[in-house]
Amino acid sequence: MAERRGLFISVDGGDGVGKSTQLNLLLPWLRENGHDLVACRDPGSTPLGEAIRQIVLYRHDLAIHRRAEMLLYMAARAQLVEEVIRPALEQGRTVVSDRYLLANVVYQGYGGGLNVDELWRVGATAVAGIMPDVVLLLDVPPEIAKLRIGRPLDRMESQGDEFRIRVREGFRTEAARRSEIIVVDASGGVDQVQASLRSHLAVWLDRRGNGGQCPRAQ
Amino acid sequence: MAERRGLFISVDGGDGVGKSTQLNLLLPWLRENGHDLVACRDPGSTPLGEAIRQIVLYRHDLAIHRRAEMLLYMAARAQLVEEVIRPALEQGRTVVSDRYLLANVVYQGYGGGLNVDELWRVGATAVAGIMPDVVLLLDVPPEIAKLRIGRPLDRMESQGDEFRIRVREGFRTEAARRSEIIVVDASGGVDQVQASLRSHLAVWLDRRGNGGQCPRAQ
Repeated sequence: MAERRGLFISVDGGDGVGKSTQLNLLLPWLRENGHDLVACRDPGSTPLGEAIRQIVLYRHDLAIHRRAEMLLYMAARAQLVEEVIRPALEQGRTVVSDRYLLANVVYQGYGGGLNVDELWRVGATAVAGIMPDVVLLLDVPPEIAKLRIGRPLDRMESQGDEFRIRVREGFRTEAARRSEIIVVDASGGVDQVQASLRSHLAVWLDRRGNGGQCPRAQ
Repeated sequence: MAERRGLFISVDGGDGVGKSTQLNLLLPWLRENGHDLVACRDPGSTPLGEAIRQIVLYRHDLAIHRRAEMLLYMAARAQLVEEVIRPALEQGRTVVSDRYLLANVVYQGYGGGLNVDELWRVGATAVAGIMPDVVLLLDVPPEIAKLRIGRPLDRMESQGDEFRIRVREGFRTEAARRSEIIVVDASGGVDQVQASLRSHLAVWLDRRGNGGQCPRAQ
């Protein structure tokens, strides 16, 4: 197996925290800062992953038990790792993923009631060692997140307020446990949140010596 | 959770051992012997499972990594457990499944090179405690199995002789380890194998007091 040289960043958070908006602003900034980027979304970003995404999020006609749903997300992620993320990291590129394993653990574990430790273990098998170097967790109170969605809800999003609250608490609990997760307050305006996101990431990159990116250009 | 009262039998073995033929003969015999049967196949037997089966076995256009494939089988099985097997067992019915977790461990582990212990662990999460009371393992030398298939090969079946040999050895290794697996020599003619299958199952049922089936009618 080739050496893993690139940097792996994931951006996560509940529905309506503004992830897509923030990612659209963050990616060009990373490019300007010399990162050779590969952007992906989980689930998705491979033909198999998109087929699974269609089933899990939009086939409201199919009965899907929460354990089956969890394993479908894991399958999509296993494919994403081998088809996209691992090759990019081996080439020294920077991967930015819109969601990753953490969301699966939080939604199906804290949200859906599955055993959180078992989910991390199944996840470890699914990703075979490929975990983010840093997770930027966008955090807003659930009542603000709900107002921000503003489009028809998919299967995950349409699960009600109590679910939303459990998911937010789950993200925060995991953030307290796992050192790679950085919580970013995302309750402000778009520009304010983006500034905070960049500042958190800049500090983190600085600490790790720019994440091994272009070290000779320093 | 309701009490599990029924009997869970799975029939397994490599491709071309004659599983379908033998199951078609075994099921009526079990019905005649007073079993209120639910027959299923894994993967399959639920709308989600059939959708997954289509992807895994017939979408030759999709890149599917072996870990993603394994997790898709696990997802199909999780749905099968909750939609079909667990409710049937709780009603005291006898479930006969054409394949189950063992095949997944053997094909993706011994066949595909994934870690066998990890597969059992992921499998335990997927099935949430629903494991067969007895596994009837049809065993034939790979060169005979290959001749028996006699139709276009699906993705699993078209993996060559070396794969077939590893799979057979995997089944036999697990049979040596796990007391619920009964190896049935399936290299003879159809009637001979069926007689052997019934005799093995009759002895097993006898030992466990007819598996809790219709105890008042004894």
